[in-house]
This record gives sequence, C-alpha cells and structure tokens, in this order.
Amino acid sequence: MMDLIRALYPLRTYLVISGVEKPNVMTADWVVPLSFEPPLLGVSISKKRHTYSVIKRVWEFVISVPKVEMLEDVWTAGTKSGRNVNKFEVTSLRTKPSMKVSVPSLEGCVANIECVVEREVETGDHVLFVGRILHVDASSEAFSGELPRNDFPFLLHLGKDVFTTTSGEILRAGG
Amino acid sequence: MMDLIRALYPLRTYLVISGVEKPNVMTADWVVPLSFEPPLLGVSISKKRHTYSVIKRVWEFVISVPKVEMLEDVWTAGTKSGRNVNKFEVTSLRTKPSMKVSVPSLEGCVANIECVVEREVETGDHVLFVGRILHVDASSEAFSGELPRNDFPFLLHLGKDVFTTTSGEILRAGG
Repeated sequence: MMDLIRALYPLRTYLVISGVEKPNVMTADWVVPLSFEPPLLGVSISKKRHTYSVIKRVWEFVISVPKVEMLEDVWTAGTKSGRNVNKFEVTSLRTKPSMKVSVPSLEGCVANIECVVEREVETGDHVLFVGRILHVDASSEAFSGELPRNDFPFLLHLGKDVFTTTSGEILRAGG
Repeated sequence: MMDLIRALYPLRTYLVISGVEKPNVMTADWVVPLSFEPPLLGVSISKKRHTYSVIKRVWEFVISVPKVEMLEDVWTAGTKSGRNVNKFEVTSLRTKPSMKVSVPSLEGCVANIECVVEREVETGDHVLFVGRILHVDASSEAFSGELPRNDFPFLLHLGKDVFTTTSGEILRAGG
C-alpha cells in the first residue's frame, strides 16, 4: 500500500541548512514556492527533526540545490540526525558564508536560497516554515537567463533510497 | 534577472480540478506534501485565479498527475481562465466521477488525489490551500508497489513554455 502523498512523487530534492555556530544540514523533498511578490517559499519539516528546533530558534534557513554527484551526502544528510552527528564531519559537504543571513550556504551547490522565516504553519505531523527569500546565489552551470537549464541533471527523489534526474529533453508547449 | 523562486525549478506540473456543476481545471507547479498522518498536501494558488474563488466556495479539489502526451492541454489549462472559457470544451481533457469528493477527477491521468480543504493560509500574492487527502486513484502505469516507477516520464516545468521529464535513470543511495 502506497503512502497517499507518494502520488505526488517523484519530487525535487533539496538541502536545508539551519543554525549558525553549529550549522546543520538535512535533506528535504517538501519545498514549494509560495509567492512571487514578496518572494516566499515553504519548507515542511517534521516536528521530530533537529532542524525543526534549530529553525524555531534562529528563524532563518538556507535551501540549497545539490548536484547529482552529491547523492551520497544528500542521503546521509537525510538519514542521520544533527542531534547525534556533525554532518559536516561525516560528509564532504562544506559551508560558506551567506550574503544576507547568518545561517551559512553550501559550497558546490548550484543554488543557495537565503531565507528569513515569516511564520510557521502547523499541518499534521509537519510544520511549514514560510520563508521570505532575501538572496539567491544561482550558478550558470544550472541556470541560464530566466530559466533553469534543461540539460542540467536536477535530482529527484522517488522514495526510499531511489532517486532519478531530469532527462534534458525539451518539450515546448503552445506551439 | 531570474525570479527568485525560479531557483527551485524545474518543478513537477500537476492539474487542479475545482467546481462541481461547472468544473474547471488549471495547471499548478506549486503543490507540496505537508503531512503523512493525517495525509495532507498544499496547493498554492494566486488570488486572481478563477480556481481560487471556486475552491473557496466548494472547499474541495482534486490534484491530477498528467501524462506527457497531455502537454498541449496542460498548457491550455494553465494559460486560459475558466472565467471566460470552458476548458473541457477547448481541450481533450475529460472528467470522471471521484470516489470521495463531489469535484470530479480527470480521465487519462496517472493519479487523481481527492482532497477536502482543511484551511487556507495567505502567503504574499498566493493562498495555500491545505487539503486532506481522502482518496488516491493511482495507475500502475506510473506507480508500482510503494513507489512511482522510475521509467515513467513524469512532467516537469522549467518555466514559460518549456517543460521536460524525468530521465528514467535509477540512482540508488546509501550503497
């Protein structure tokens, strides 16, 4: 029997960085744009997660867009808890200073999206943090002009330990 | 200059069905799981949209997962307004009865996710409708056992009229 929400999968996989002195990183599929103006996004995090309590305290976070080559670290970030492990010691993920928030960004990611929390919304067993985007650092490796590049292999999660990528195919509508 | 929220793209593209006597369908990229138990999802809709006022009134909606072959209809559903046009007359999309809600489902989609609205959350220029999933009808063409099939080409939106699909590649983590 499939989890009901699995019908929305596969979903893009992102990394969420939280904390300042002791930064932490976790993997999250449940990330969504929420407004163009002001620019808002949402990240839905289980109340059991270490990241939940850190964001509650610091009220900032960064969403990073990983490369396929980072899959093993993405998996570790999603299956270990920052309560027990310093994930920056057990992965090759490295922080770098952000531009507009005190929470760090990630080196080697193709985008770092710096957010300050506007509000939190309780939804069942998760909390949706609504973040206002203060700054985006997007690499030309994955983004060109106004759009993501079709030929960059963005990472998607099918569930469990199974991931895939975007195909690179261009489908143009409205021809 | 790229829209800040574009750094989260490409995103999966879904169809949102609203209304009962005069059903309407629109395209939405801003759809996200919000809870396993109870099963909740969110769909973020501009307050200017016809679908917004219809969901406000009926308090139910269905999220459908389209096939790549439906791209032209997906595009029409996202660029025409149900205020002016009956989209079921100008596309080949067809409704069928849902199991647990009065809003219809879509024929030919690989999943129909039937939801009743639990609450709405204002976020900037959009409103997030939080829906409780009452029933999911998922086709074995795209879902197998507990997971989506890696070899099914799920549709993703890069922006404007440009779309792509999942690649079918299997990336297994934690090996």
